[in-house]
Amino acid sequence: MPEERIWTAALLVIGDEILSGRTQDKNVAQIAKWLNLQGIRLAEVRIVPDVTEKIAAAVNALREAHDYLFTTGGIGPTHDDITVDSIAAALGVPVVVHPKARATLEAYYAPRGGVTDARLRMARVPQGAELIDNPMSGAPGIRVGNIFILAGVPHIATVMLEALSGTIEGGRPVLSKTIGSYTPESEVAEILREVEAAHPGTQIGSYPFFREGRVGANFVVRATDPALLDACAEDLARRLSADGREVRDEVA
Amino acid sequence: MPEERIWTAALLVIGDEILSGRTQDKNVAQIAKWLNLQGIRLAEVRIVPDVTEKIAAAVNALREAHDYLFTTGGIGPTHDDITVDSIAAALGVPVVVHPKARATLEAYYAPRGGVTDARLRMARVPQGAELIDNPMSGAPGIRVGNIFILAGVPHIATVMLEALSGTIEGGRPVLSKTIGSYTPESEVAEILREVEAAHPGTQIGSYPFFREGRVGANFVVRATDPALLDACAEDLARRLSADGREVRDEVA
Repeated sequence: MPEERIWTAALLVIGDEILSGRTQDKNVAQIAKWLNLQGIRLAEVRIVPDVTEKIAAAVNALREAHDYLFTTGGIGPTHDDITVDSIAAALGVPVVVHPKARATLEAYYAPRGGVTDARLRMARVPQGAELIDNPMSGAPGIRVGNIFILAGVPHIATVMLEALSGTIEGGRPVLSKTIGSYTPESEVAEILREVEAAHPGTQIGSYPFFREGRVGANFVVRATDPALLDACAEDLARRLSADGREVRDEVA
Repeated sequence: MPEERIWTAALLVIGDEILSGRTQDKNVAQIAKWLNLQGIRLAEVRIVPDVTEKIAAAVNALREAHDYLFTTGGIGPTHDDITVDSIAAALGVPVVVHPKARATLEAYYAPRGGVTDARLRMARVPQGAELIDNPMSGAPGIRVGNIFILAGVPHIATVMLEALSGTIEGGRPVLSKTIGSYTPESEVAEILREVEAAHPGTQIGSYPFFREGRVGANFVVRATDPALLDACAEDLARRLSADGREVRDEVA
């Protein structure tokens, strides 16, 4: 069997509001799950402040290391929205007003006071970019090369991801099966290790929890091949049961 | 006035469960807020998978670029817990069993089946390390050089942070004041820019929201100097009011 090509993406979260702890990020999880549906693995995330040099350095490191780079945040109309300028600087291209983005904003803001200089900032893109539809609030996302520039507000990022669904090449999604057990993970560590080693092409993660006064863990088996996944998960359940351990569905 | 020394930290989140989207990270926000109380700014976050080379490369990049590096995740008893080994590899030191950690685990597990090989993994540290107390579940956190190795489970990370409070040198915390307004941020972008420019030593972030069918934004003024903070926030409120804008407390 030829080795399977694995497609990877990085995510760059841009924003002082995340690094200050003021805002709880929700884009990492939603983009991770969306990427997996496209057959692409989220392989690295970085969170950087609203500083051009920090953004540009991270953009260049990540776009070269991965098939795709997604960014969230910093594409609004105010002075702290510097993502487009920073990415253009990273790419060494000028910033231009995209005619279609300008037309979209003019239509969106016609009944809302018209397009001002601040609003026109949201039509600015790195030269050579295409737009990503935003039916929610007018200001589009941006694709330039292998970089996808999304909004930071999670529900606007969601609609931009929906617009991109099925348009980006990937491989096979990672499949998973979860076994939960009210067993301390330290008591079954050797079983986990042996079962993973016996099933090449699978991985087992162990995630402990504390519920209703008892400790336990969810064991997550991951693989891209459904037959490998099933065989590993069945073997793990059998080995845990043979060791006298409870085996149940994921404990949420 | 001499330039103020700014202390910075990076956070490295280690774990396939975050990158797969299965688990919502909560450590970035809690560590960011805790660091600010210590007078240290969270300047960068990276999230990497459970892969030794990825962890070690990020550790070396981040510990050199910042005063402190915090890590979360991967310090439990199972095969996928490779943080200690990866950090030791990054530092070029061996992994050793810490006698006090071993004694702590022996006491903790005496009524819980005793210390097994798997549980003894949690006493392993990079050579030269000190321990960080964990009154919650026995297995300690680890400090080695400027690196602080914390648990991934958020409430265990919390008690480790409590154990560290006041023990790490920092500068002045970043203070903030928030003004909320049911005003589209694009209509006041010029005011925000001008007020920030008029108050060196302050920053203004604009965070839009959509509530009860209306758009608005929270404007967050940040500074380490309380007098600068107050002057900037008062000027912003005055300018917004003079422009006919509603000014209220933060819209949560």
